[in-house]
Amino acid sequence: MTNKSELFGRILKAPENFVDPELCAVITASGLNEERRGFLRKTFLAASAAVATSSAFSQTPRSGVGAGDPNILNPSIAATTLGKPVASNPYGQPSKYETNLLRRQLPGLTQVPQASVAFAPLQGLFGIITPSGLHFERHHQGWYDIDPATHRFMIDGMVKTPKVFTMDDLMRMPSVSRMHFIECGANTAMEWGNVAVPTVQYSHGMMSCCEFTGVPLSLLLDNCGFDRKNGKYILAEGGDGSAMTRTIAMDRALDDVIIAYGMNGEMLRPENGYPLRLVVPGVQGVSWVKWLRRIKVGDQPWATKDEAIHYVDLMPDGQHRQYTSIQECKSVITSPSGGQRILDKGFNNVTGLAWSGRGKIKRVDVSIDGGRNWRTARLEAPIQSKCLTRFNIDWNWDGKAAILQSRAIDETGYVQPKIGQLRAVRGTKSIYHNNAIQSWSILESGEVSNVQVS
Amino acid sequence: MTNKSELFGRILKAPENFVDPELCAVITASGLNEERRGFLRKTFLAASAAVATSSAFSQTPRSGVGAGDPNILNPSIAATTLGKPVASNPYGQPSKYETNLLRRQLPGLTQVPQASVAFAPLQGLFGIITPSGLHFERHHQGWYDIDPATHRFMIDGMVKTPKVFTMDDLMRMPSVSRMHFIECGANTAMEWGNVAVPTVQYSHGMMSCCEFTGVPLSLLLDNCGFDRKNGKYILAEGGDGSAMTRTIAMDRALDDVIIAYGMNGEMLRPENGYPLRLVVPGVQGVSWVKWLRRIKVGDQPWATKDEAIHYVDLMPDGQHRQYTSIQECKSVITSPSGGQRILDKGFNNVTGLAWSGRGKIKRVDVSIDGGRNWRTARLEAPIQSKCLTRFNIDWNWDGKAAILQSRAIDETGYVQPKIGQLRAVRGTKSIYHNNAIQSWSILESGEVSNVQVS
Repeated sequence: MTNKSELFGRILKAPENFVDPELCAVITASGLNEERRGFLRKTFLAASAAVATSSAFSQTPRSGVGAGDPNILNPSIAATTLGKPVASNPYGQPSKYETNLLRRQLPGLTQVPQASVAFAPLQGLFGIITPSGLHFERHHQGWYDIDPATHRFMIDGMVKTPKVFTMDDLMRMPSVSRMHFIECGANTAMEWGNVAVPTVQYSHGMMSCCEFTGVPLSLLLDNCGFDRKNGKYILAEGGDGSAMTRTIAMDRALDDVIIAYGMNGEMLRPENGYPLRLVVPGVQGVSWVKWLRRIKVGDQPWATKDEAIHYVDLMPDGQHRQYTSIQECKSVITSPSGGQRILDKGFNNVTGLAWSGRGKIKRVDVSIDGGRNWRTARLEAPIQSKCLTRFNIDWNWDGKAAILQSRAIDETGYVQPKIGQLRAVRGTKSIYHNNAIQSWSILESGEVSNVQVS
Repeated sequence: MTNKSELFGRILKAPENFVDPELCAVITASGLNEERRGFLRKTFLAASAAVATSSAFSQTPRSGVGAGDPNILNPSIAATTLGKPVASNPYGQPSKYETNLLRRQLPGLTQVPQASVAFAPLQGLFGIITPSGLHFERHHQGWYDIDPATHRFMIDGMVKTPKVFTMDDLMRMPSVSRMHFIECGANTAMEWGNVAVPTVQYSHGMMSCCEFTGVPLSLLLDNCGFDRKNGKYILAEGGDGSAMTRTIAMDRALDDVIIAYGMNGEMLRPENGYPLRLVVPGVQGVSWVKWLRRIKVGDQPWATKDEAIHYVDLMPDGQHRQYTSIQECKSVITSPSGGQRILDKGFNNVTGLAWSGRGKIKRVDVSIDGGRNWRTARLEAPIQSKCLTRFNIDWNWDGKAAILQSRAIDETGYVQPKIGQLRAVRGTKSIYHNNAIQSWSILESGEVSNVQVS
């Protein structure tokens, strides 16, 4: 196992001092009329008031020392020399102080790193957009950097005119851009068997969210004259060496599936299928076929090895479920989360992500007592279908042990289940589709760890 | 001037062959009921029908050669070897085939590259999110990579309790995430004087759009007990060496201004103000102070050098306007755009960006005849306030010379003006706030260039 500083990314640290007994007294009614900001302010100030003696947010002049003393109240010093020139990094990189926030393998998880996972560091991410450089990876045969000038994409099978498209063909066609999450069906897999992995990077990091750009698949199927009567399924095939193919029902293929070349404003990254991948909103990542080279239209599911043997849900009676592809409603608190440490009592922002393969997130509740009591979190706009939604909630930590949970509800009314509820139906032998409520234990020391609360 | 291949990023190329006289015949009514896709399909197919003899989108089997011939109809070959392992780039990078898409300086624009501009390559970007590595840069003294552990941010002036905040202080406070565009007030400046720069990267590339995360400034001002009666302005000051400071009216400061540490899911990039910058939605970029170290509350504008001498609008009568900070409604077609070449007649997707510092985009119209006739473009969701909106429109190019324009209308009803209308009021000596309609000339050769149509 790598050491802590490599694992955990950004740690919550304490303000450097706590001298502000007057914090509350100086705050007056604001008269602001913007509802949301008003809500923010009230809860924030209430929490500040409750913990004024222990948790101010800033350095203030100490009594007896005037604010004029530059040693006491000073911002950062302004630079006195020239900085670096523009375009010195024509393709920019993160700060040298952020090199700890990386996608990472879980050592020992797989036998070869070409058929493995690199997890996204959710504990250090903000908002809903996953930076492309930190998008999770799951490969079955490694990744490739394919020359787009030579790449060809074919549609065949039950179509009137089978065709092969170049990237240039695709890029002059009608284009759409949409934000969607992608989650591996095996995300949070280890929690099924009561293995509480240490951090949210490893428990939930097989998930990312991007703005995708490409051509609606329905247009291309139309263009090839697919068999509307008998063509009930498509098979998607990638250009890697894993022979990994996935069946998708035609209803879904005609709905919101995209043949995508763009991700977060630029071309797809090689690890994510450059120059072409399938985007299947709401469906597990394995169906978002990378390095996409073919779609075949047929009249029944193919039951390929990755549908018949892998990516199936083993039920308690020994049977397995196939084709359970939708990622159900789920959420997780990303900070504070396992491996982090809260150094201070008092006000702390609790933040996390919620998503549903069925549509939009309607509500997220947060508990600090292991699920006995719940408060509704603020959802950040935009709230989009089959897309991550960022939530935030104010928390005035009293310094005592606590168990943090989040529970998402989507627009269909589905409520994210407890792990015990899932196990009652599906046992403990599954790998895929664990969307249970996640629990983080906070000790009096401020240490946060992964615990299971059934 | 750098050479063409460096300048222009992705070029529109032709499909490799054009043999598909049956293209239209094979397309039948689809029966899809999703309104937008229906719209897409109809216009796309109509265009395909109109140009079936000259512009199919794909290779199809030639007559007399069966589809079974692998030399005729084949997708890309699947890999037969192991690819690269996961996390081989723990912070990923673009494909080696995309190294041409970079932010770039315009040679000779400024005397030193520390007080200069690097433009974003809008011609090659998709959707609304600007990849952080391609975000435009405008520095007055170069950029810095500041240690967040030592960075301090002060609020002082007309406040009851001046305070200094650490990054840790700020990151435990209530957090918001919002998508906004940032545009330099001098974007499209060279067009005032009839200098038609060759590409959209140089005409409009001082603009980017990101998801920002941080603390509402209103909360911090509350926290310090600012003077609600007399504190009518704030002054924002950065940690670079340029002594560049900007006044912002308190009404705006209390509205939607954010003290931001996050950008596109990760910490700000150094070139964009890491670890802290001001986000002033709808306002020109110079007010989004980078490496933010201080906000001072006062009772009148400061009229600093960058407000009194720079960033002012020189009017025809020789007077100048100060504090014209809002970026008015504007749009531009990003592809096809100057320096690109359309190699084919027939269907081409026309795409671009629209934005307004006053709110949401309501509509974008596109003309192919220099503004005589207009059609309404499709707007991609989400449509957000003070944020880029991506538009797309279908175009069946008949191979004749054309002049492409886009015209945006925001939710206030404001209509993006022609350059002649702007000049009638403001003359030709301005540098800032040119939001005129942009014209791209298409020659019969397919070459696209920047022209001015008053």
